Formats: sequence, structure tokens, C-alpha cells
Amino acid sequence: MTHDHSAHVHTVPARKGRAVRLRKGESIKIVNTHGHQVCDTWAFSSDDPTEFLSMEHTRPTIGCIFPTRGHYLHSNRRRPILYFAEDTSPGIHDTIIAACDDYRYGLLGCREYHDNCTDNLRAAMRAIHAPLPEVPSPLNLWMNIPVDAKGAIGWCEPVSKPGDYVVLRAEMDVVVAMSACPQDILPINSGKPVDVHYEILAAL
Amino acid sequence: MTHDHSAHVHTVPARKGRAVRLRKGESIKIVNTHGHQVCDTWAFSSDDPTEFLSMEHTRPTIGCIFPTRGHYLHSNRRRPILYFAEDTSPGIHDTIIAACDDYRYGLLGCREYHDNCTDNLRAAMRAIHAPLPEVPSPLNLWMNIPVDAKGAIGWCEPVSKPGDYVVLRAEMDVVVAMSACPQDILPINSGKPVDVHYEILAAL
Repeated sequence: MTHDHSAHVHTVPARKGRAVRLRKGESIKIVNTHGHQVCDTWAFSSDDPTEFLSMEHTRPTIGCIFPTRGHYLHSNRRRPILYFAEDTSPGIHDTIIAACDDYRYGLLGCREYHDNCTDNLRAAMRAIHAPLPEVPSPLNLWMNIPVDAKGAIGWCEPVSKPGDYVVLRAEMDVVVAMSACPQDILPINSGKPVDVHYEILAAL
Repeated sequence: MTHDHSAHVHTVPARKGRAVRLRKGESIKIVNTHGHQVCDTWAFSSDDPTEFLSMEHTRPTIGCIFPTRGHYLHSNRRRPILYFAEDTSPGIHDTIIAACDDYRYGLLGCREYHDNCTDNLRAAMRAIHAPLPEVPSPLNLWMNIPVDAKGAIGWCEPVSKPGDYVVLRAEMDVVVAMSACPQDILPINSGKPVDVHYEILAAL
């Protein structure tokens, strides 16, 4: 699937990234069109991009490592930056794993350049002339990383189904960046990275 | 306890921070002198401080959210930056919670300035003229944050005992920063922030 469904639905191409600007009150609907795709997601304050969505500040605030519908996601200044307004999937999203990068694929045995979420973030931000002061740990939508009582982590396939979506509402003016994760060595994308889609929803 | 045990043992005063330079192969022994104190810990490459100890890159590399003896701790460029050489405590250390900061204490009800680990990091780095490009998520030594199978987190007292220590060996030239966490509202320091001590150990 490489074409938009309509004038309002946009594509994050398989293995690539996109960034978009949202005004406070607007929302982004991110659609797991094929059901088994992880989408690394970031948000940066438009006023000052050194304030951004922070997993390590969100976890203590929501009291959980798995954010889902009803949670306010927090910035590194402990302010709500996104509100997790809807989630039609079972609510399994990861907050503990860094975005993949060229170092990661090198360690996994790649000898050539491999698309990666960190470079996708950089390219997506550059494409809309948005500054990127650092690379925060992402919200990995649909990434299924269970953690057992001893802290051991697993690398599992998404439990979402085709067409599942989340809606994230901007609690301040933000740039939201997404990467359709190109991981094709570990099973997190069921081995086959594909597109995701998104739509901007007007403020209610 | 406010005095050093010897010429070789240094103090991180209660509620404050310290930073020290280590050459590759040297180690730092950090002592939980009173047994119930959390020590937020960071490491930055001396050559390029934009490379630093990263919790989100370490977790996938060691396959666990609780690092302890025998683990290589990784940088945001996926290189070993510290080796967790010794740990006399039960190995309960946190990687998922951000350093406390003035925003945090504001949300906890403080109306006046409260000492915090983020400002302690900044001051400790300034004190030795070491640059601080960003504030990474810390390794919270002895911080006891259990995570259940549903991802819910708890805020518990340390399980370490007086005199427990860890030894972290530098895998590259680094600046190590520590903060004796001033959290006195939540139970993570058993309600009473105190000193920790450290010693630099020569390369073997």
C-alpha cells in the first residue's frame, strides 16, 4: 500500500520517517494499517524543542511502563505534551528500548547501511526544517517488549490487528515525528517492515 | 558521616553531586555507606561527551532492565562505556526513572526550591569544567523500582545493606557523575537522604 486513502490520510513509507506540526488541541491518528508494524514516535515542543516527550519522565508520572488510552504523556519538564486519547489495539506499546540506529544493525551483523529509526527521525525533522537538539528515547507504538518480574525483556511480534489506530492529542504546539521501523532481523515487525498511515484531526 | 575514611575515600554529600574523571581501565567503587541511599549515576565520554551511558541502549543490549555484576553498560553509540565489575548488594538498581528535578518536586507539592539530582549533575559537571550536552536518563544505583507483569511500577526502599558497594570499570576515558538523591518525600531513600562514598581504583 503506497498511496494515500484520501486527501487527508498520509503515509509513513515502510522503513522511513515523517514529521508533522500540530497545534495545541489538534490530534494525530496513527494507523497500523497492516497490523504488525512498529512506529517509533517522538514529540518536540514547537516553542522550544529542548522540551520533548520523555519516556523516563512519563513512566514515573503514569506509574507504568506501558502507556495507553487515558494517559497523559509527559515532557522532560514534566508537563503533559500529548494525551493518549484513543487506542483500538490491546495497548501494548514500548517505552524502554532506544530507537534502532546504524550501530545497532552493525552489532546485528549488517555490513552495509541499514535504514534505521534514528536516521529517519533526523531526516524527517530536516525535511520540515524543524531543529533536533537530541535524540530522545521514543514511544514505540505497537512494539511488544514484555518485561518479566526479574526484569528480563522479550522481543515479540505486535499483538495489534490491521487497522488498529491510536489518537494522540497535542497538549502544546508540537512537532510529532514517526518512523515506520525498518527492523527486519528481530521479530518485532513480524519480519516485514511496511507502511503506517496518519491523519491530522482538528481540535474539537 | 561527613568525613572521608581515608585520603582515598571521597564523599558525595547527602543531597549533593560530584563528578570525577576516569581513564580507561580505572574503576570507581561507589559505597552505599548507610545502606538505604540511592545514587543517580551518569558517564560521559571524555573525548566526546555527546556519547554517554544510555539506559535505553543498555537495556536491549543486556536483555534486562536491572543491570548488575557482569553486565557491560552501553553508550548511546552502543559501545561498552562501563563494566559492572562488582556488586555486593542484591543487584536491585533502576534504569527506568528519570533523575528528579525541580519540576518533579513542584508536582510533589514543594513550594520552595528542593535539591534535585538533575541540578546536582549540572553543578558537579561545572565544578570540574566538564561539558554537559544533555541530561541522560541515569543509572539509579540501589533504587528499588519493581515492575510487575502489567508494567505497573512501585516505589520501594532499597534492599541494600550498609557498606554495600558497586565497582564500575571505565571502558573508555570517561567523566562519571553521581548524585546522592535528595528525594525525601517518596520512600526510595527510606525517607532520609544521606552521604555515599567513592574511591578511584587503579587499572589492574
